[in-house]
Amino acid sequence: MNTLYNGKTKSVLTDDAGEVYLFFKDDITGEDGVFDPGSNTVGGSVEGKGKIGLTISKYFFELMEKNGIPTHYLGANVDEGLMHVRKLTVPALEFVLRYFTAGSMCKRFTLDEGIPFDPPYLEVTLKDDEQGDPLISERLCLMKGLLKEGQYDEALDVLVRVGEVLRDELAKMNFTLIDFKIEFGYDENGKIYVADEITPDIWRIRDENGNIPNQVDASKLILEKIK
Amino acid sequence: MNTLYNGKTKSVLTDDAGEVYLFFKDDITGEDGVFDPGSNTVGGSVEGKGKIGLTISKYFFELMEKNGIPTHYLGANVDEGLMHVRKLTVPALEFVLRYFTAGSMCKRFTLDEGIPFDPPYLEVTLKDDEQGDPLISERLCLMKGLLKEGQYDEALDVLVRVGEVLRDELAKMNFTLIDFKIEFGYDENGKIYVADEITPDIWRIRDENGNIPNQVDASKLILEKIK
Ligand SMILES: Nc1ncnc2c1ncn2[C@@H]1O[C@H](COP(=O)(O)OP(=O)(O)OP(=O)(O)O)[C@@H](O)[C@H]1O
Ligand SMILES: Nc1ncnc2c1ncn2[C@@H]1O[C@H](COP(=O)(O)OP(=O)(O)OP(=O)(O)O)[C@@H](O)[C@H]1O
Ligand SMILES: [Mg+2]
Ligand SMILES: [Mg+2]
Repeated sequence: MNTLYNGKTKSVLTDDAGEVYLFFKDDITGEDGVFDPGSNTVGGSVEGKGKIGLTISKYFFELMEKNGIPTHYLGANVDEGLMHVRKLTVPALEFVLRYFTAGSMCKRFTLDEGIPFDPPYLEVTLKDDEQGDPLISERLCLMKGLLKEGQYDEALDVLVRVGEVLRDELAKMNFTLIDFKIEFGYDENGKIYVADEITPDIWRIRDENGNIPNQVDASKLILEKIK
Repeated sequence: MNTLYNGKTKSVLTDDAGEVYLFFKDDITGEDGVFDPGSNTVGGSVEGKGKIGLTISKYFFELMEKNGIPTHYLGANVDEGLMHVRKLTVPALEFVLRYFTAGSMCKRFTLDEGIPFDPPYLEVTLKDDEQGDPLISERLCLMKGLLKEGQYDEALDVLVRVGEVLRDELAKMNFTLIDFKIEFGYDENGKIYVADEITPDIWRIRDENGNIPNQVDASKLILEKIK
């Protein structure tokens, strides 16, 4: 296997046949281990975290597919920590959906925590750690060649559908979805797919007592429910 | 005269009759004395700067009024450094218009300098130095009570008209307008007016040689042309 890209929490690998795999590492990101779109990240590593993340991703990608949402997911080998994916062009963008105000957004705009958004609040940010992942408009995405005409709105439509499936599934597990972010990828024909991962690293949830578990605790709790 | 607000470059004063005046100080802001929407500011003071700024503001507010654009301007006493204005509610927002990429925007989004925007590129930022004046959406402006339904789009329409008048006038003076920001105020009936100031502190221009003069130099150059 050759490494195409060595990311913070995953590596992108390819085999001799040109198939692409994501390897899930044991590294964590996120302030205090809590996912927060727009915040700076801190590092760390937790034994077994990669395989747990892969198991959860597998579960949620299969759930998305069942709900007719196109994803890059082709299969998973949990023992090896590998997710088989479609090879896509993934623009350096994050698509954020919020059902409630939380975290860095409250600080940035001096808003109380937990104000509901109905319909949900959508944001697109440029993945650029040095610039703090700034919000980016459709027009600048086109200008930078990150997206083609129509793809911005299309991505927001898929984002909303992902949110509905995710929120409903987490609600069944007695969690309230606060916010999450996903990445999208495109094949040679410009067809859109949900890419990257779907794990507690990409969302923030509240449990029945109103507490927000960190990524490690959330992973364990979700893992129990999907077993 | 009583001081209602003591700002970085101006004070808001009121007399016994309740009339409101802006006093133009000699203080400067802007990195290297060059206006840059989105950048951090540095301080300083230049003798006579206040009166020059007031003279230029007077000229451009009168020009806006001639072009049918509603402004808070009611008159000016340059010797006293005072501009008589309508008392308005001024939300903590800045409305930015860009004809070309420049400055902090290029850094933030890794863009070359001087890429033209046609139609111009519009941004609304929350005035909050600590948070670096973040971009703010219509929805958050409504949620924070900064604007009422419809006022966001209305402000952007007026912004574009201000840009046309400003660009054409500066072009006659052989300057190319790169970008600028204005503030809007609202009376008790919710009627919109261009508020604050219209000086080289709010725009970035390029001269015939392609150079960007700093605020002090730009002020002197503009002053000569309007005399
Ligand atoms: N189907 C795919 N095809 C190609 N690349 C993909 C695919 N799915 C995800 N990727 C990319 O794989 C990389 C995974 O690495 P990782 O999640 O560690 O992210 P990172 O970019 O280093 O940092 P971070 O996501 O924390 O900002 C990301 O760059 C992601 O865009
Ligand atoms: N017609 C008006 N009625 C009431 N207040 C006004 C009016 N026009 C402008 N203002 C306010 O007067 C103040 C002028 O102060 P100044 O320009 O020094 O700004 P500041 O808010 O301290 O800082 P900065 O503009 O540099 O971020 C601003 O708060 C502005 O919003
Ligand atoms: Mg990532
Ligand atoms: Mg000001």
